[in-house]
Amino acid sequence: MKLLASMEQIMRNKQVIFNGFIEGAPKVTDMEIKMSNIELKVPKGSGAFLVKNLYLSCDPYMRGRMRDNIASYLPPFVPGQPIQGFGVSKVVDSENPNLKPGDLVSGMTGWEEYSLIQTPLQLRKIQQNDIPLSYFVGLLGMPGFTAYVGFYEVCSPKKGDYIFVSAASGAVGQLVGQLAKLHGCYVVGSAGSSQKVDLLKNKLGFDEAFNYKEEPDLDAALRRYFPEGIDIYFDNVGGPMLDAALLNMRIHGRIAICGMVALHSYSDPQGLHNVFSLVPKRITMRGFLQSDFLHLYPQFLEHVIRNYEQHKIVYIEDMNEGLESAPAAFAGLFSGKNIGKQVVCVARE
Amino acid sequence: MKLLASMEQIMRNKQVIFNGFIEGAPKVTDMEIKMSNIELKVPKGSGAFLVKNLYLSCDPYMRGRMRDNIASYLPPFVPGQPIQGFGVSKVVDSENPNLKPGDLVSGMTGWEEYSLIQTPLQLRKIQQNDIPLSYFVGLLGMPGFTAYVGFYEVCSPKKGDYIFVSAASGAVGQLVGQLAKLHGCYVVGSAGSSQKVDLLKNKLGFDEAFNYKEEPDLDAALRRYFPEGIDIYFDNVGGPMLDAALLNMRIHGRIAICGMVALHSYSDPQGLHNVFSLVPKRITMRGFLQSDFLHLYPQFLEHVIRNYEQHKIVYIEDMNEGLESAPAAFAGLFSGKNIGKQVVCVARE
Repeated sequence: MKLLASMEQIMRNKQVIFNGFIEGAPKVTDMEIKMSNIELKVPKGSGAFLVKNLYLSCDPYMRGRMRDNIASYLPPFVPGQPIQGFGVSKVVDSENPNLKPGDLVSGMTGWEEYSLIQTPLQLRKIQQNDIPLSYFVGLLGMPGFTAYVGFYEVCSPKKGDYIFVSAASGAVGQLVGQLAKLHGCYVVGSAGSSQKVDLLKNKLGFDEAFNYKEEPDLDAALRRYFPEGIDIYFDNVGGPMLDAALLNMRIHGRIAICGMVALHSYSDPQGLHNVFSLVPKRITMRGFLQSDFLHLYPQFLEHVIRNYEQHKIVYIEDMNEGLESAPAAFAGLFSGKNIGKQVVCVARE
Repeated sequence: MKLLASMEQIMRNKQVIFNGFIEGAPKVTDMEIKMSNIELKVPKGSGAFLVKNLYLSCDPYMRGRMRDNIASYLPPFVPGQPIQGFGVSKVVDSENPNLKPGDLVSGMTGWEEYSLIQTPLQLRKIQQNDIPLSYFVGLLGMPGFTAYVGFYEVCSPKKGDYIFVSAASGAVGQLVGQLAKLHGCYVVGSAGSSQKVDLLKNKLGFDEAFNYKEEPDLDAALRRYFPEGIDIYFDNVGGPMLDAALLNMRIHGRIAICGMVALHSYSDPQGLHNVFSLVPKRITMRGFLQSDFLHLYPQFLEHVIRNYEQHKIVYIEDMNEGLESAPAAFAGLFSGKNIGKQVVCVARE
């Protein structure tokens, strides 16, 4: 059958190839732009579907897939193959009974112009509305849902709680802070530049925010912003900030461990020194993944879309143009180059 | 009134005095035996009561009261005053309407022959039965109750779970293991001598046990004993064992942080390096104190006494004779000298 495919259906397919396993933070040179060919036709009866990728999501968890030495919750990337990640895509051809050409979907896809998807992962059909398409990898995608379940299901928030969010202007943090404000909490965020601090205070509605790079003593900084202590720490960074937060938690405090972007190396991870605080303060520290809570996705969507439409939630994106910009956009996450959710636009439709 | 007290009521009162604040592990020289006098009569209308101390409990948490630099859940000891701790005592005189001479009580008392108690803490009247009196500071006291609430309320145990207990032959660990076996779990314990390992396997009913001092690689040891991983780690030690356990937890594993006897210094605590495991494995790590669960004490007592009377629970005590032995007994906890629950017998009645 393949031999009979018409030449019109063979397209050039630009790809971002994974060069090989790494140890520290991802660099631009760990990826490579390559051209290949793809037939825009799904093999009959395969159950697969073929998409044109529109928006690709750059997320810190992807670093874990660049290592092969520690079991992660997702398999490692395959050297020589395209990077995988969440994206918003348009169906071009389909042997999947639930999808037809023209459908818009979000889910795991390849970092390339076109992807043939055999085994969909967190695939969702997008019902078009007034919300920007790219938000389906951000506010309404994995990061937004992570914020939602992390806040409501892991942090056990109560009205009036004192909440601290690190990487607070990032894809997850910015929504955590806004949900916490809507819940009646007092919210302080940390970020790595004065521009981000300004966004937190003046656009995202945080009560206070600070630039951690300007704080020589993180413990003292948290004591200043939380003289009464912290009820909930939503941790996106780990490392010294988590250590400082441990010293400033209140009794029965809760720490949601969402990710550890500050962890520079897995083979020689920095030490945490203040875990002993867990006992006298009866702190609960819990790691979580949004994928354990997928049954809550519909109620999340309803909650966030309603608040977004009522202008009670905003979302900040950092949009890079063109697939070629993807390696730099991704590597930039680990030095905090992005302002808001990092997305790469491959095509607008 | 005091001047009228008869001379017969003035007694010599041997005491264990706290010498002053410390940083590292407690040493014998941090305490001192001293003689003082006490009038065996409670001031009229004071509401206080006076006890003769029979059994005193040596517990690792007491180290926290020997420091004055970090807020603990109990106030620091007062230099020059007797050490405070849990004990079993006999009421000698009472202005407390609930107590009369001859009553046996457990609760916070002084390390001395006689104590005048103004503000009772975790005071309980002992209903005499066939259970040894000293067990009211061990199996039926704070350590036993810690094991009970830690296991049932913090670990969320399920039948068939794989459970690891460190300091497993200690005051808390030995009961955790036995409760876990009664619950249908697979239980492995670690301890610091072959004699303790033998007790765990042959007297306390653990499925397996090992001497951590003979394991150059704790991670490898846990992999050997838990090829399928650990569902619940009941942590009594912190430090390198906690780090190794973090690498061996199963998905949705739970870690109860009960104490950190391996923490040699608070001002320069050892680092924990594997906390990043919390996210991919969605681990919950929770510090707790038995004092948050006091409403469960009656059901604990009923459960443990019933199983003890049916010979389904045993309890190992390390009993030192005489108040003079208390400093060495207490200091010995931090090098694992004790075999089982460390108690000091001051008087038998």
